[in-house]
Amino acid sequence: MAGERMDREMRQQPEILSRLLARRGEIIGSVRGVLPGDLAGVVLIARGSSDHAAILGRYLIEAVARRPVGLAAPSVLTLYGSEVDYRGYLVVAVSQSGRTPEIVDVLGRARARGARTVAITNEADSPLAEGADVTVHLDAGTEEAVPATKTFTAQVAAFALLAGAFGSVPWDEDAWERVPASVSSVLEDPEPAGLVAEALREAEGLIAVGRGYLFAIALEAALKLKEVTGILAEGYSAADLLHGPVAVVEQGFPVLTFVAPGPARASMEELRAVLDRRGARVFLVGEDPTADLPVPGGIPEPLATIPVAVRAQQLAYSLGLRKGLDPDVPEGLTKVTFTR
Amino acid sequence: MAGERMDREMRQQPEILSRLLARRGEIIGSVRGVLPGDLAGVVLIARGSSDHAAILGRYLIEAVARRPVGLAAPSVLTLYGSEVDYRGYLVVAVSQSGRTPEIVDVLGRARARGARTVAITNEADSPLAEGADVTVHLDAGTEEAVPATKTFTAQVAAFALLAGAFGSVPWDEDAWERVPASVSSVLEDPEPAGLVAEALREAEGLIAVGRGYLFAIALEAALKLKEVTGILAEGYSAADLLHGPVAVVEQGFPVLTFVAPGPARASMEELRAVLDRRGARVFLVGEDPTADLPVPGGIPEPLATIPVAVRAQQLAYSLGLRKGLDPDVPEGLTKVTFTR
Repeated sequence: MAGERMDREMRQQPEILSRLLARRGEIIGSVRGVLPGDLAGVVLIARGSSDHAAILGRYLIEAVARRPVGLAAPSVLTLYGSEVDYRGYLVVAVSQSGRTPEIVDVLGRARARGARTVAITNEADSPLAEGADVTVHLDAGTEEAVPATKTFTAQVAAFALLAGAFGSVPWDEDAWERVPASVSSVLEDPEPAGLVAEALREAEGLIAVGRGYLFAIALEAALKLKEVTGILAEGYSAADLLHGPVAVVEQGFPVLTFVAPGPARASMEELRAVLDRRGARVFLVGEDPTADLPVPGGIPEPLATIPVAVRAQQLAYSLGLRKGLDPDVPEGLTKVTFTR
Repeated sequence: MAGERMDREMRQQPEILSRLLARRGEIIGSVRGVLPGDLAGVVLIARGSSDHAAILGRYLIEAVARRPVGLAAPSVLTLYGSEVDYRGYLVVAVSQSGRTPEIVDVLGRARARGARTVAITNEADSPLAEGADVTVHLDAGTEEAVPATKTFTAQVAAFALLAGAFGSVPWDEDAWERVPASVSSVLEDPEPAGLVAEALREAEGLIAVGRGYLFAIALEAALKLKEVTGILAEGYSAADLLHGPVAVVEQGFPVLTFVAPGPARASMEELRAVLDRRGARVFLVGEDPTADLPVPGGIPEPLATIPVAVRAQQLAYSLGLRKGLDPDVPEGLTKVTFTR
């Protein structure tokens, strides 16, 4: 049946998240064990969905580590052969399969040049895991659908746990316990996604936008929509959207906005005013009770990214089915991309 | 006349680049004077077009500095108030006007927490310049058209010069002298852009893709096309495009590919094969003699980004005029974006 695997994997998310949480102490301890004494910075390596988890990961880690965190540009090392000195750095590579050659290569180069290294992967015996000082095993089970769902939320959870290795996290630890239930309640309520999918059925393009922690979720939502439905969806931070690209938003153009209570809200409200003036069709995703795609409230913004991401998965899935596509195998895509 | 200012500013580029080159020694010397003794890393701060110059800047600097270079996520500091320790870092902020409050704010926070700071700006007496240890003044003259053209190429040149402060650059210094003439010859030959614009006249969406140094130019080309023509253009690295988003490329979908001779070429050729299989309409930008938008050959890849960027400006300009729009003032955009 079309979309059967993606649907099954989405439903596995609460249990996978609970299992990761149960290993919280072990994960934090193992990463803490390899942290450089005088931390110069942190570099994250990823592509695709994992890259979006890493973009969120850099916010989560920088807030706790209090040293700059950045994302690697793999080609500086792999294409141009620059010999970058990574002494003092923790380098974290993220790959579902642990087999994307470029990611394995970049982590190896960083380690050879002084970095302490962590692999976040779903395959504990992959080349990536073998090449790292420490592995955070996602234990999410085989991913059979091409669009990553359970891997993405598990990666986000792994980054949030890993942040705890650097010091005390800026969210209530008890909040963690509410995340799996929040994801379950989203999964048990597919109607809102169906309604938004119906409204987007004829859309050729779409913009997904967030700010702060939810920026990465906007990017991931756009990727899921592209992969599963073929729609031209582009993700933006609210700040970047206003620096020019908002020019594409005409009367009736659909915009998915990701909004959390908290410091990013004011910026999203300013954006909303601009979008309304341009006549955009705005859909709201978040804990607001009037949201088109609501999520349960009461979870701190960094962790609320997880149920919000599941809403975006639901939307992509639902729109894909409505378009007569098979969400499990988007046309022409394969599971591991062999980038050099 | 529609597009008069954008056209004038594009034509000023060779002279602006020559003036910057003439100040090469002064620029390198002033930045060298503030480099931390034991460099931990480099962080770049920017938004919009300047962000694309910074993405290229990170490649240019990392290759020479041999310490990790990353891009700031301003909201970690400005929204969430994280107190990141920047000791040992050089932090470079890029803003045409030097007045975007968020950029000024982030540079100030980094400086207060130990960073050595550089401003790259067109306004030598702006708040950004006043808040930095050293200013690289672009001296590009007032920018009156909303889409940044001369500022972008001047910023790229500034980054390439600034890289020289860290050590010896991986390109022949004489090559610099050929850049302004190369830009002139592109400007004197607008026909190819007119032909591609004609072919794109009815396109609703487009993908721009590069790898390595030209990745940033693909991003900038997509932004210029969005701003000036309202087309849904998205920029990608070839590696990321294959990780899912290629799903949107159907029969006849237009893709602009940015290709340079050099190590990124093989990856672009693999991508080309995938695009051809999917029936994309591929347009080639680069020094290849068969290119749809050719640039003069013989300039090393990092510096060839400048004439290639001018080809993309020409295309956006030409397509905007053909669509009956005024490239100088895209609908609803203003010059300085007051992001908080």
